[in-house]
Amino acid sequence: MNDVNPVLVEALRGSAVESMHRGAVAVVDADSRPVLTLGDVSRAVFPRSAVKLLQALPLVASGAADALKLSDEELAIACASHNGEPAHVATARGMLAKAGLDADALECGAHWPGLDLATRELAAQGQAPGTLHNNCSGKHAGFACLACALHGRDGLRGFLRGYVEPGHEVMREVTSALQAATGADLAQAPVGIDGCSIPTYAIPLERLALAFARVATGQGLSTGHARAAQRLRQAIARAPFMVAGTGRFDTRVMEVLGERVCCKVGAEGVYCAALPERGLGVAIKMDDGNTARAAEVVMAAVIEALLRLDADEAALLRGLSDVTMRNWRGTVVGTLRASTALRGAF
Amino acid sequence: MNDVNPVLVEALRGSAVESMHRGAVAVVDADSRPVLTLGDVSRAVFPRSAVKLLQALPLVASGAADALKLSDEELAIACASHNGEPAHVATARGMLAKAGLDADALECGAHWPGLDLATRELAAQGQAPGTLHNNCSGKHAGFACLACALHGRDGLRGFLRGYVEPGHEVMREVTSALQAATGADLAQAPVGIDGCSIPTYAIPLERLALAFARVATGQGLSTGHARAAQRLRQAIARAPFMVAGTGRFDTRVMEVLGERVCCKVGAEGVYCAALPERGLGVAIKMDDGNTARAAEVVMAAVIEALLRLDADEAALLRGLSDVTMRNWRGTVVGTLRASTALRGAF
Repeated sequence: MNDVNPVLVEALRGSAVESMHRGAVAVVDADSRPVLTLGDVSRAVFPRSAVKLLQALPLVASGAADALKLSDEELAIACASHNGEPAHVATARGMLAKAGLDADALECGAHWPGLDLATRELAAQGQAPGTLHNNCSGKHAGFACLACALHGRDGLRGFLRGYVEPGHEVMREVTSALQAATGADLAQAPVGIDGCSIPTYAIPLERLALAFARVATGQGLSTGHARAAQRLRQAIARAPFMVAGTGRFDTRVMEVLGERVCCKVGAEGVYCAALPERGLGVAIKMDDGNTARAAEVVMAAVIEALLRLDADEAALLRGLSDVTMRNWRGTVVGTLRASTALRGAF
Repeated sequence: MNDVNPVLVEALRGSAVESMHRGAVAVVDADSRPVLTLGDVSRAVFPRSAVKLLQALPLVASGAADALKLSDEELAIACASHNGEPAHVATARGMLAKAGLDADALECGAHWPGLDLATRELAAQGQAPGTLHNNCSGKHAGFACLACALHGRDGLRGFLRGYVEPGHEVMREVTSALQAATGADLAQAPVGIDGCSIPTYAIPLERLALAFARVATGQGLSTGHARAAQRLRQAIARAPFMVAGTGRFDTRVMEVLGERVCCKVGAEGVYCAALPERGLGVAIKMDDGNTARAAEVVMAAVIEALLRLDADEAALLRGLSDVTMRNWRGTVVGTLRASTALRGAF
């Protein structure tokens, strides 16, 4: 039982603990020196969407972003798991248009918007979702723009076909950037297929944290990737709505903290962040795969502990790490909170 | 770390375990003899909606169900966490009408239907959800019918007001039935407020299992409650759509197994079941509160292990305990499965 990760988040109903979430947290600097280690940080985890910024490095480093004059909004959505709100759909569509493509080029599949209100509005208009509503459509539009730099516009649609496969030239570029940033040997890593059909590689949590320390500092990245990381961080800070959307953790935190935090949620309880002013990278994995109510609480508590916050900033983060829960009538029924094991670790 | 519950469910991506769910399972007979114990079954858990059948015992035992000529569908929905589909809304509305009441009498609050399709259809009609769409509306309509027996129709609306409070005569009847079935001293139990605003009491898992062994056999219940339990089990078996709805575990399992299983899901990873032919009760609590992908898998594996199933029945249950997961494009990406610790426990 020594390998059991600690409880990081507790859900209380009334004053009793109803449920709990275990997990691991790694915070390291760009020299791999651990600042905080909770649980087993050497275990390899599928980072899922938490590494979209790393997967977007070639989009900038290849020159595609400049050649196609991608805006902050477009670069931010290339790193996004967005809500499928109208502005997200329009932005992803616009990126594809710059590459001379449309939604049919995307291989991410379709799903109803992540924001319930956006789903209901779409349904009320008698519409069904397309690939642009997929939370990964911006990332895939970024892949299409990268393909434009690799191949040129001539015959681009044919070149792009099958881009989600590991052996495709586009995906090899993306995987190579992920390998360089994490220092993990991805050829030897367990591989799975992500929700949007691209490969996802299992990477030790401490190496994911290292990659984001590198994103925070540029240290340990090639010059081109270091510049790309800075450009993407700036774009996300300027357009935080594009990386997630209405009501979402990443958007709310970066709207307030700007470039001080570059955080990104992933499926199955993964969260990564770069903290440039501290030169640190953060990686979180909840054992049970719960993102929305577990990994987010942990990330909020980590940011609270590591950054100097003013009163408004502290209030926002405390509201995300010590969450009042209400029922359908609006009655307070409980609290979702960072555990004492987590709070006490700093 | 000796108090850490075992892993009962694993989520695999490709061939690697991506996430895992810990929890406890108690299976006992009506004499409290344990047939299976996994994890800490003495810990008190909030049973949430898993005990709706117990909370509906007074509806039948009071004579209200007979006096108001409640149908199988109406008795089933009194024990339901339903999808808010049109048939559910109509059935709950009809029960209230039999008591001379309407949706305004319900104190459960409103939420969009649990079934996404029902939400989209409601939105497409330009409508918003009301209290009847609340997954607990049938239970609350049952409380209203119970109130009719306790008070009579005259001034019923006034009598009913505040029925969700622990001290209200209706709720005292409901709590008394829960206490009698579980044998727990609820006056001393931790109490919280449930999603639908009624109290929920923390009860040791093994006592929840005992209550459902009593429901399965009648043994240990008063004559009135034993008859009521049998009537409710029969009603649910005849109208399994009403207890959950399209695509839902409880509905699918009971459509096939009928009276052989009477199972009921609860929020926060709770599941209870009565297995009449074995004279057993089952209670499950996942530590992380995950119902849909964890407690359901455990319940499927428990039913598989405890009942003799024909090929079709076995195939249904195996599909629920060893679930193929696909992404937005329909590609197989992984498996959700009962752990070897769980499978090997029988």
